[in-house]
Amino acid sequence: MNDYQHILLAVDYSEHGDYVAVKARSLANKYQAKLSIIHVLDNIPMPDTSYGTVIPLNKDSSYDLLEAEKAKLMQLGDQLHVDPANRWLVWGVPKQEIIRIAGQEQVDLIIVGSHGRHGLALLLGSTANSILHYALCDVMAIRLLGG
Amino acid sequence: MNDYQHILLAVDYSEHGDYVAVKARSLANKYQAKLSIIHVLDNIPMPDTSYGTVIPLNKDSSYDLLEAEKAKLMQLGDQLHVDPANRWLVWGVPKQEIIRIAGQEQVDLIIVGSHGRHGLALLLGSTANSILHYALCDVMAIRLLGG
Repeated sequence: MNDYQHILLAVDYSEHGDYVAVKARSLANKYQAKLSIIHVLDNIPMPDTSYGTVIPLNKDSSYDLLEAEKAKLMQLGDQLHVDPANRWLVWGVPKQEIIRIAGQEQVDLIIVGSHGRHGLALLLGSTANSILHYALCDVMAIRLLGG
Repeated sequence: MNDYQHILLAVDYSEHGDYVAVKARSLANKYQAKLSIIHVLDNIPMPDTSYGTVIPLNKDSSYDLLEAEKAKLMQLGDQLHVDPANRWLVWGVPKQEIIRIAGQEQVDLIIVGSHGRHGLALLLGSTANSILHYALCDVMAIRLLGG
């Protein structure tokens, strides 16, 4: 089977994120594949003070953050015509969660934007700790220049 | 421009190499893209002796090796319907040569098989020394299991 049937886009809200999203949609169309999107929240904003990092206990602000992230994912999902059931907002370590969802949902291609330190770190990590190492499916890195 | 126009397959003659080749051909067809293939010869067989590594000076055997590699590339090129002008047999460091040819030929997607230590090392290397870091285009890793 050479045709992709389920493509998972790891969503990036950088200024170039739309470019990656449009490429992913285009690829899914070529293969008439299902497209899913995932965004992993890997940190809670923690203000630094001179006494060290303070973990905010204000539940409302965490809730607001989550709602804002959800709204962004829903907007992108609508834009890319992604079925609401295939939009994943997850807390955790990005590469672990991407690989976990890819396995669970029988994804055969993961698409990640590759730019700057963050993008490369996600793809590469250390050799023994990268998406490329652990993914049981194909991985495509969309190159973003200037990142 | 979201459509790939020139795809470069880094050829791998492992037992799973055909699987990667067929996927690359299929992707090129989807995009009606030009497909090129490259194989980089990164070493000359050098027999070890108790006095150290001996560089063989037998020109005939190097020539035979080159001819054999050429024949393999031509066979794959025929199989994948790659224009003879787009078949590259190069000596050097694989990731450097792949990136060099990709730049020279205005490739917009590099496809590499990802399996075992060799495949991952080619893709990853150290973060600062990998195809993913230096490529100015998209990179797709075709996952091969059991490698």
